[in-house]
Amino acid sequence: MNALEKSRLRILHIDSSARLSLSGQDRHGSHSRRLSARLTSRWSSARPQDDVVYRDVGVAPPSHVDADWIAAAFSPPGRRSDEQRARLAESDRLVAELVAADLVVVGAPMYNFGMPAPLKAWLDNIVRVGVTFGFDRARAGEPYWPMLSPGKRLIILGARGDYGYDPGGRQADVNFVEAGLKAPLAYIGLRDADSIAVEFDEFADERLARSIAAAESRVDALVDRLLADLEERLPV
Amino acid sequence: MNALEKSRLRILHIDSSARLSLSGQDRHGSHSRRLSARLTSRWSSARPQDDVVYRDVGVAPPSHVDADWIAAAFSPPGRRSDEQRARLAESDRLVAELVAADLVVVGAPMYNFGMPAPLKAWLDNIVRVGVTFGFDRARAGEPYWPMLSPGKRLIILGARGDYGYDPGGRQADVNFVEAGLKAPLAYIGLRDADSIAVEFDEFADERLARSIAAAESRVDALVDRLLADLEERLPV
Repeated sequence: MNALEKSRLRILHIDSSARLSLSGQDRHGSHSRRLSARLTSRWSSARPQDDVVYRDVGVAPPSHVDADWIAAAFSPPGRRSDEQRARLAESDRLVAELVAADLVVVGAPMYNFGMPAPLKAWLDNIVRVGVTFGFDRARAGEPYWPMLSPGKRLIILGARGDYGYDPGGRQADVNFVEAGLKAPLAYIGLRDADSIAVEFDEFADERLARSIAAAESRVDALVDRLLADLEERLPV
Repeated sequence: MNALEKSRLRILHIDSSARLSLSGQDRHGSHSRRLSARLTSRWSSARPQDDVVYRDVGVAPPSHVDADWIAAAFSPPGRRSDEQRARLAESDRLVAELVAADLVVVGAPMYNFGMPAPLKAWLDNIVRVGVTFGFDRARAGEPYWPMLSPGKRLIILGARGDYGYDPGGRQADVNFVEAGLKAPLAYIGLRDADSIAVEFDEFADERLARSIAAAESRVDALVDRLLADLEERLPV
């Protein structure tokens, strides 16, 4: 994170679960919301000076990328019609939140092996040619390059009904959530990523309780480690 | 496919590209639509008696699964309120199309390494507890089981701006389109799958032209093989 240049960091907190209440407070509450709320709350307690911007795509899904969006995004900014600028206004807002963020916290439950559709709609809105990535067919080597400034960090907080989706697990090969977020975000320049998830939701037994406790401990330890790193790099 | 029981097959043809025109007919046309149209057209020429149901989620994205949808889907059918039944009406229609289909043809372009958000919204609507999959925590072994009838076949027709996303390719590990569709569809019982894709769209050069030609040949060969298999299994 850009700690050396800034004394106030910006955190972009995104939630995407269709379940609106928090696990622990409600029987059918969201585990991903529970973890993301815990993380940002712990962070803010330690650094109340940092800004937290909250974007709930579970409550308000971004509109889908469509033919008009593509035509507008691929038109040079100076040649866009008023309608095209209006069509991109939502994407502009979502991109601005990401560009401004030092830390991006994403609550991303697994639905049918992938991320919720509204979170994919968010992704499709923030991968923007000429804004978050560059493209030049005539360029030597890869024609693409990332345009987000370096130093940002991504934390993905997941939840899965079943279990064994972490690397090395029995179902790791059919988990498209974390990798499906990391690949496009790395493509635009957000490469440093951590992820923590709750499993066993559908079994609602002791294994779920243990998984929640382990995930919460890992969230706390991650926040503490990031804060300690930050402290070390801050000017004296 | 259930050829032995039926003389008329049902084909569910789904498109999801944000590009509404077809590549080959329009400069910025969709390659996935081009391939899916070619496939269903070749099939229908050989078997005009078969029904083709067309579902364009690129033009009309299904609504997102939300808290009300989940509450309705997880209520026993006999205990659903009128509102809950209404909330599931769209999902019911999408499920009915899939349940009735012998062959499912999906046009699925790659957007930011994954499927278009409207296609994920479709997936999230058709994976329905008690309808397309069963769940019983008390069951020995896996608590899930597929509920689609056996004998269906899936064909995924893809399109990618860049290249190297097929198995063994340089970017196969960040392709979440085909696997992201196959995993949930196998989970509900649709296990026999083929996929064919166009690559190099963003380069718009000779490699794109060759990729389109190769994909079209593969589509034709696949249709011919499936028709020959069908012929063999039909009662004399």
